[in-house]
Amino acid sequence: MRPASGTLRRVGRGYLVATERAIEGRTWFERFWNRAKAILIGHPLTNADLPHERLSKLKALAVFASDAVSSSAYATEEILLVLMLAGSTALGYAIPISLAIVALLAIVATSYRQTISAYPQGGGSYIVTKDNLGTTPSLIAASSLLIGYVLTVAVSISAGVAALTSAFPVLHDHKVSLAVGFILLITLGNLRGVRESGTIFMAPTYLFIGGFLLMIFVGMYRVLVGLPPVEDVAGSAQTATEQLTLFLVLRAFTSGCAALTGTEAISDGVPAFKPPEAQNARRTLTAMAVILSILFFGISLLAVTYSIVPREGETVISQVARAVFGVGPLYYYVQFATMLGLILAANTSFADFPRLSYFLARDSFLPRQFRFRGDRLSFSAGIGALAVLSIGLVVSFGADTHSLIPLYALGVFISFTSSQASMVRRWWRLRGPHWRRSMAINGIGAFTTALVALIFAVTKFTDGAWMVVVVLPLFVLLLRGIRHHYDEVYDRLTLDQPDQPIPHLHRPLCIVPIEGLHLATLHALSYARSIASDVVAVLVTDDVELAEDAQRRWERWGGDVPLVILESPYRTLVGPFLAYLDAIQTRKTDAPITVVLPEFVPKHWWEFMLHNQSALRLKASLFFRPNTVVVDVPYHITR
Amino acid sequence: MRPASGTLRRVGRGYLVATERAIEGRTWFERFWNRAKAILIGHPLTNADLPHERLSKLKALAVFASDAVSSSAYATEEILLVLMLAGSTALGYAIPISLAIVALLAIVATSYRQTISAYPQGGGSYIVTKDNLGTTPSLIAASSLLIGYVLTVAVSISAGVAALTSAFPVLHDHKVSLAVGFILLITLGNLRGVRESGTIFMAPTYLFIGGFLLMIFVGMYRVLVGLPPVEDVAGSAQTATEQLTLFLVLRAFTSGCAALTGTEAISDGVPAFKPPEAQNARRTLTAMAVILSILFFGISLLAVTYSIVPREGETVISQVARAVFGVGPLYYYVQFATMLGLILAANTSFADFPRLSYFLARDSFLPRQFRFRGDRLSFSAGIGALAVLSIGLVVSFGADTHSLIPLYALGVFISFTSSQASMVRRWWRLRGPHWRRSMAINGIGAFTTALVALIFAVTKFTDGAWMVVVVLPLFVLLLRGIRHHYDEVYDRLTLDQPDQPIPHLHRPLCIVPIEGLHLATLHALSYARSIASDVVAVLVTDDVELAEDAQRRWERWGGDVPLVILESPYRTLVGPFLAYLDAIQTRKTDAPITVVLPEFVPKHWWEFMLHNQSALRLKASLFFRPNTVVVDVPYHITR
Repeated sequence: MRPASGTLRRVGRGYLVATERAIEGRTWFERFWNRAKAILIGHPLTNADLPHERLSKLKALAVFASDAVSSSAYATEEILLVLMLAGSTALGYAIPISLAIVALLAIVATSYRQTISAYPQGGGSYIVTKDNLGTTPSLIAASSLLIGYVLTVAVSISAGVAALTSAFPVLHDHKVSLAVGFILLITLGNLRGVRESGTIFMAPTYLFIGGFLLMIFVGMYRVLVGLPPVEDVAGSAQTATEQLTLFLVLRAFTSGCAALTGTEAISDGVPAFKPPEAQNARRTLTAMAVILSILFFGISLLAVTYSIVPREGETVISQVARAVFGVGPLYYYVQFATMLGLILAANTSFADFPRLSYFLARDSFLPRQFRFRGDRLSFSAGIGALAVLSIGLVVSFGADTHSLIPLYALGVFISFTSSQASMVRRWWRLRGPHWRRSMAINGIGAFTTALVALIFAVTKFTDGAWMVVVVLPLFVLLLRGIRHHYDEVYDRLTLDQPDQPIPHLHRPLCIVPIEGLHLATLHALSYARSIASDVVAVLVTDDVELAEDAQRRWERWGGDVPLVILESPYRTLVGPFLAYLDAIQTRKTDAPITVVLPEFVPKHWWEFMLHNQSALRLKASLFFRPNTVVVDVPYHITR
Repeated sequence: MRPASGTLRRVGRGYLVATERAIEGRTWFERFWNRAKAILIGHPLTNADLPHERLSKLKALAVFASDAVSSSAYATEEILLVLMLAGSTALGYAIPISLAIVALLAIVATSYRQTISAYPQGGGSYIVTKDNLGTTPSLIAASSLLIGYVLTVAVSISAGVAALTSAFPVLHDHKVSLAVGFILLITLGNLRGVRESGTIFMAPTYLFIGGFLLMIFVGMYRVLVGLPPVEDVAGSAQTATEQLTLFLVLRAFTSGCAALTGTEAISDGVPAFKPPEAQNARRTLTAMAVILSILFFGISLLAVTYSIVPREGETVISQVARAVFGVGPLYYYVQFATMLGLILAANTSFADFPRLSYFLARDSFLPRQFRFRGDRLSFSAGIGALAVLSIGLVVSFGADTHSLIPLYALGVFISFTSSQASMVRRWWRLRGPHWRRSMAINGIGAFTTALVALIFAVTKFTDGAWMVVVVLPLFVLLLRGIRHHYDEVYDRLTLDQPDQPIPHLHRPLCIVPIEGLHLATLHALSYARSIASDVVAVLVTDDVELAEDAQRRWERWGGDVPLVILESPYRTLVGPFLAYLDAIQTRKTDAPITVVLPEFVPKHWWEFMLHNQSALRLKASLFFRPNTVVVDVPYHITR
């Protein structure tokens, strides 16, 4: 042990702890890479740096509600876009539809209040469902949520960019680049480990809520006292292209249900609240539901009152803001706050998706990479996967909120349903005090959300919901397949008895493939002799003259290792060499065949391509050969 | 040895020969790949299959002259394209310019006749220059030739496609795809090992020569007896955009010099002639020069006589053929023969480029890959490189002959110059009979071609010749750099004494990084114990609980290998592990540190990504660590 170097610290018998010096770069490239990473995402943190912040109700509302609340920025528009198909006169239906969605929100929120009480340690759909309904339902819930999170990012960012381009139409042509840029920014921020610290979230969320409330109250006041809109935003009359059927109304309703996404966030994060956790979480959930109801219904009311018609290039919110404030500081404030609120909503998915991936990977349903925390303690693999998937969606759908909506909300409502159904099962199983009442509440929740999911799947099937219907079961199969593989590997690797001894092996037979007689060969032969008594050098070549020459030289040299010449008239190395191994393995059966590869380490990495890649190809083939061990003996040219 | 398997044949003590069975695929994928390759490029051939055909003069002319002769298909057009800038009246200058080029051809051919006599074993520019002027000039010659070969392919194929699209204008929009398709076809043919067998070359070359001769004689006859052209092809009057300066005439002259490319081919291939080789080769060269002169000058004469003006979409040859034959069978025959002749010309580069690359690789100026013959005995690396480079050129220049011409010929003339200058030096050195006369002939050749190269570089500099001027020295530097690297490696690897014994090493200290106690670990530990007496298992983890648990389990297990826990609070594996190796290496100095890696081989390749890539990352880092040996002990899950 070299205590001077200070890379390791001994804390007990056979127990060392690495210090920060142990992770310093060893080559200029590693140092450069570490420096670049430090600038981009910050210096590495140790496990001890994991934060444990407790949130006040005010901060918690900002952290957990931004996703749900910000959806009021596009939900009304999505309803109007469907109703518009039946002509301008149908737009008035937005009021009863919005009322229905508010009622649905009340049901879902009441249901989740019970989940909070039952799972004060945090009750995401995956965990609650696994606990009560078993593996497959929990994987359905998890897959729905993962899909939902990806779509939350895509939809929120697209809507946020729409807020920006409504205020600055010149940016309209760059909306895809803007959306991708925002996602990359959020990704970087999350790799740095932007914690869900209330402070960061407070300002944008309350700016958003404040702006919307102000707009709604001022708007309502102006309408009630009979003042005309500051700017006339009434849309031109739309001719109907479809009949106003129940089907169309239901389609409009499901579009508006996007407002409810994110409602489950608080029940996931109960442990982050200050004590009494459950009580504070329940109150925050109620506050969130009330605020969301006011914002969403208020916007719908104003939009209908002002006869606003959705149009390309300007959001409904932007039109409402123009009617209420005119284009001035307050208008720009609303647009800017909308954008910030929506980007923050996407950011919550960047916390939720990696965390759920972590849970799934911990239970072996996802590759282990998703379990590892990166330099900054964030789940880098999950963050990366979410970034790639959401950028893919944004680019394919041209950062258009409206074309993404048919895919959205279905996943979220499936996870609502499984979570509520799990609660029903739980009440039935435990039968504590008031279990009938509680079961009824969650039962109504489960039934309603299931109904909405069904309506959604049917009415939006051809618009894109079919993708979710197809992807969801495939994803569940993938998760099960991964788990199956890990289980199988675990089975095969487990010791037969807990005190199973190390099997005894004879010293191996060493084969050293060589190119000729030089120092690297000597180095490899000397290593082979140090680990085995039985060493053979093999020269594979297509050149008869070279072979005979090598044989003569080998005899003159007089080292005591036998040389086998393997002439390969087809000029290939791997096949004849493997054939040779097959041939000698019939003689020696006990120890694995050991192939000692003299490898050559040039001074600079770019010189690698100047040397035969034969060793690499040989290694690739030998890796799959049973009972074969490959030993790399690098010869460094610098020394 | 298992004689039953029949993969190897013993031919002497320590000397085995692999049979065809040794190269059979071992997995379904390998077998599939081999099958596909066999269909595409044919069954593998052994070294004994290398052909040694001797060519008659008639066949040799077809093989070696197709490149030079076929350039008559575009040389006239390139002259006219430059002259046109000075208006229609300037086009008549094509006659004296063509005469000058024919004179130049006579000089170059006479020079090369001497090279043939001096180097009956084959005297390419690279070899002749290396022999007489030394390394750097020979590398300049070689680089010029390599560039020239790439351009020959690009220019010939583009001109061949132009012949096709002149006859079938509907194909004009697809000329790039057609050109790339032809190059791929030739590449495949050469990978199959289309030998330069005279038989394959005979038909197209003589069809081409015959067609052109017929067209010239019929045309001349019609002109002399005063018959009008069958179709009036006289171009509209062109207004001058430039003055008819000497500079412009020289530009036109250098454009026409493209006709001379390929003249050196015969001197490269003297050994392929029937004896007396040198004499036959000289006669063939003369015949080639005469034929090329007639074709090229005849076309120029007819084009000027018929007042043909180059125009987009139809070649000059096509216009001449229309004037002489009218659009009928003979017209299509000429177009088709032109295309075939030009494609064959490209094909000769596919023989020359890989052969020159082989010479350069043999002298360590190019990576060793260029020395290897593929399954079909062709130099696959050279063929592949030429295909990639020429396709790159064709695509970048839109398969347009005219835009490629400014890059062409410069390289070829530089190699002419160095080859002729080498001959001058040779005569001076040897001073055999008639050395003064011979030296004068080559001297004139060297001077003339040097002058042309200079004029070319100056007049075409801004048109694209600058690229050659820039690339050429860079390429020479690259070749020298590669050679320097190989020399250095050779120096470092050579044994100090020819009977230097194998150094003695103590048994190594084995470090086994483990993830936990399972069968793969046991397998690796057992192997480590079979090669060393000093074995330590190391567990790197960031999870304190897991670490303590593993330590307890290890003690209960009671195997006699010590376990070191290495806690890594930054969660990274490699840094702390390397730090540990550094720490123990100070204690043990003799044998290399041996890291025994338990590796896990899943049943299917796609399952790889479900397992930690940590072993891979560890290997990459350990490869560069001095005095460290890595042992892969794969554990196969299937067994």
